[in-house]
Amino acid sequence: MQTSQSPDNLRAIARQSRLQARAGSLASPTPGRSPGIVQGNVAILPRDWADDFLRFCHLNQKPCPLLTVSRPGEYLLNELGDDVDIRTDVPMYRLFHDGKLVDEMPDISHLWQDDYVSFVLGCSFSFEEALVSAGLRLRHLERGTDVAMYRTNIPTTASGPYSGPMVVSMRPFKPADAIRAIQITSRFPRVHGAPVHFGDPAQIGIADIAKPDWGDPVPIEPGETPVFWACGVTPQSVIEYAKPPVCITHKPGHMLITDRLNAEYSAF
Amino acid sequence: MQTSQSPDNLRAIARQSRLQARAGSLASPTPGRSPGIVQGNVAILPRDWADDFLRFCHLNQKPCPLLTVSRPGEYLLNELGDDVDIRTDVPMYRLFHDGKLVDEMPDISHLWQDDYVSFVLGCSFSFEEALVSAGLRLRHLERGTDVAMYRTNIPTTASGPYSGPMVVSMRPFKPADAIRAIQITSRFPRVHGAPVHFGDPAQIGIADIAKPDWGDPVPIEPGETPVFWACGVTPQSVIEYAKPPVCITHKPGHMLITDRLNAEYSAF
Repeated sequence: MQTSQSPDNLRAIARQSRLQARAGSLASPTPGRSPGIVQGNVAILPRDWADDFLRFCHLNQKPCPLLTVSRPGEYLLNELGDDVDIRTDVPMYRLFHDGKLVDEMPDISHLWQDDYVSFVLGCSFSFEEALVSAGLRLRHLERGTDVAMYRTNIPTTASGPYSGPMVVSMRPFKPADAIRAIQITSRFPRVHGAPVHFGDPAQIGIADIAKPDWGDPVPIEPGETPVFWACGVTPQSVIEYAKPPVCITHKPGHMLITDRLNAEYSAF
Repeated sequence: MQTSQSPDNLRAIARQSRLQARAGSLASPTPGRSPGIVQGNVAILPRDWADDFLRFCHLNQKPCPLLTVSRPGEYLLNELGDDVDIRTDVPMYRLFHDGKLVDEMPDISHLWQDDYVSFVLGCSFSFEEALVSAGLRLRHLERGTDVAMYRTNIPTTASGPYSGPMVVSMRPFKPADAIRAIQITSRFPRVHGAPVHFGDPAQIGIADIAKPDWGDPVPIEPGETPVFWACGVTPQSVIEYAKPPVCITHKPGHMLITDRLNAEYSAF
């Protein structure tokens, strides 16, 4: 998590991890593998299904903060790094047919089509690094577990076949630390930005905070309040519901490692 | 509360109010009398008591955000406006001897001493204007009451004779609006900045939220959470406790109207 190294060093470390991913030999999840560097959520859709999804991202920027979108068939994502190849550089892909998971693989070159459009969305790893750098403690990281994620009753704005509730991630803080966390994450609108809620989970339709819909539960200590951020699982959930004939995503935790610094995405 | 007028217009309105105050004819409280303009909390102390207080302000910037401090005997506060005269321009003064209120008056020229040091501190009116401009609703303003203020168990950092608990003001919001309010007030560190707490009042030593120590109670509706900001009553409370032989302040709500725009104090 430390980011005191030079940008060149950080990019060199990231590049090393990305080359491992390209070679199919980066088996473990990417968090911690590229300090200071933006990791992205990936979704690849055929052109006929891409325009509505692009509009969906625009209409729902907190859960779907778009880092880049390719032209149809374009597989080199220059905005994210000189040599980023979306066909090979994600450590582990998931293939969905009609919204159903059918396979996992470390390379999709053999599946590539000329009409595939690639979406890369920001990820909370970026703001978590900023929170830790500011001296805040993230319990799920200290426990070595996944962040707790919940389906809410907060609606997204629909676009074509894409609709459904927002998914949020939750991190518990004492109120003074929650205020700091709100300030810090406000600086990163391209990676979910400020929280969407804090306090009573029932207000956003979460029946049991001890039972997340994704990830692992995390205890909330006395004097702490749960703080909820829009989560990158929202677009995946929405795509599954829309059931496009084909969709390729990253495997959760196995993100695309870019050449871009988290610090480049700080709004102020 | 609207600030869509030009800076020159806003300063002209402020100047009009300040001239009325100077003439002793601005009897009503200052909120609403100078849209877009910084109003200040005032404390005047003899030199022997001023240095520790200046250090107190520096050590406790959230409750005591110093806008300017004069040299001993200096009564024109050029940093706040071309002709601001601290002896005449506060609409109503309060005179304290040994921490006890002994008189109120619209002019202190006859009391002025060559060793008097004037402190002007930022005031929440500035950030309240920013909150309202952003579309948030402030219930105490809509009800036409004073904001609710409470003594807490949050200690200030002592400096010489000055010490005591922080006083906070409270405004209720739904969580999503509270997050916006935290973002907006973070932009104004010179006028108390971000909140110091939200949620459970008992965590900061407030026994009964329905019984403020200063100002008026305000109802908290279902689904709302109380949000607490450091308050400019803190320095007044601390000065009363320190019991300097003489101290002159503004009468609450009768603030010094400056020539400075609230927008000038926005950090970003």
